[in-house]
Amino acid sequence: MDLRFNSPLLESAVAELSKLPGIGSKTALRLALHLLRQEKNVAHALGESIIRMRDEISYCSRCHNISEEKVCPICSNPRRDSKTICVVENVKDVLTIETTHAHNGLSHVLGGLISPLDGISPSDIEIDSLIRRVEEEKTEEIILALSPTMEGDTTNFYIYRKLAHHPVQISLLARGLSIGNELEYTDELTLGRSIENRVPFNATVKQ
Amino acid sequence: MDLRFNSPLLESAVAELSKLPGIGSKTALRLALHLLRQEKNVAHALGESIIRMRDEISYCSRCHNISEEKVCPICSNPRRDSKTICVVENVKDVLTIETTHAHNGLSHVLGGLISPLDGISPSDIEIDSLIRRVEEEKTEEIILALSPTMEGDTTNFYIYRKLAHHPVQISLLARGLSIGNELEYTDELTLGRSIENRVPFNATVKQ
Repeated sequence: MDLRFNSPLLESAVAELSKLPGIGSKTALRLALHLLRQEKNVAHALGESIIRMRDEISYCSRCHNISEEKVCPICSNPRRDSKTICVVENVKDVLTIETTHAHNGLSHVLGGLISPLDGISPSDIEIDSLIRRVEEEKTEEIILALSPTMEGDTTNFYIYRKLAHHPVQISLLARGLSIGNELEYTDELTLGRSIENRVPFNATVKQ
Repeated sequence: MDLRFNSPLLESAVAELSKLPGIGSKTALRLALHLLRQEKNVAHALGESIIRMRDEISYCSRCHNISEEKVCPICSNPRRDSKTICVVENVKDVLTIETTHAHNGLSHVLGGLISPLDGISPSDIEIDSLIRRVEEEKTEEIILALSPTMEGDTTNFYIYRKLAHHPVQISLLARGLSIGNELEYTDELTLGRSIENRVPFNATVKQ
């Protein structure tokens, strides 16, 4: 081991910190020296929370969201509308959807998007389990909340075809102008789509 | 605890990560979700290296640099020139000086700079122990390598006065143009100082 820091322990902490995404070796050194200046319990709380989180969090057997129980708090909440499933790419998207408070149904985390270029086929992500859920749970609506990218559109279309013979309603998140954005800075694809999908003006509608 | 993430364990890891300097709650969440996607040993290596570093690294009793032993590897290295001490503000500055390979003497970490505005007086930093070292170790030269700021200059002057009656030579890092920088972007104070301290041109001198 290179004794650049005169301390293998510091070296090792810097090496581990710089494995985190977006943390280079200079930032890692700054973080390590910061932790060295703090009380011992600060480093213990950080280190132990990381280890416990990784050891004890697993995934909900129903929706594949992170969960400390076999079934996550969203799936086991009786006040949520179990007939509507919002399909998202990853765990972070569940959190993002939850912060809007606009969806009171359940979720389904695919764990990725179909991407032939990256070698991700439909069997690599949780599509089969989604189809099974729709059948078993008698789902009335699924909301496709994937990113409006080629991979997202491909995945949307694949799910749409798989469910063609089911009575479930399939919805897509609206695409249009971002609220608060200037018209001139909106890209032409989004603007074009928002003209095609224009809605009747209604003073009572939420802008 | 707010169950924003449906998981107190994730919540806790995000809270601890966002205590790190420059890491906001969004970045902390991204880091935590990244760790959740990695193998368990990645989170264990990170968590344990942070805890071990904080528990086992202490400070060299001689120069106050970080050290895993009572005396750090720089102080205990017999090939280093023990008659020259480079005085720096903090541990990171020792690492920075070491990377230049231009100093083969010892170090002395003050742990701060005199700053009446921040309530840091000479007795709050390791100046007395520096004076004692100079007396006991029969130091021949101390190199003041503090930042060229008001606090650095104040500290330099304080140390200079404290050592006025010692035969030790006191040097200051050269101030002048940064190598590779355009003259027009050099600030006028630095440029002025580099004119005052101009050196005879010598084709063999390191530029």
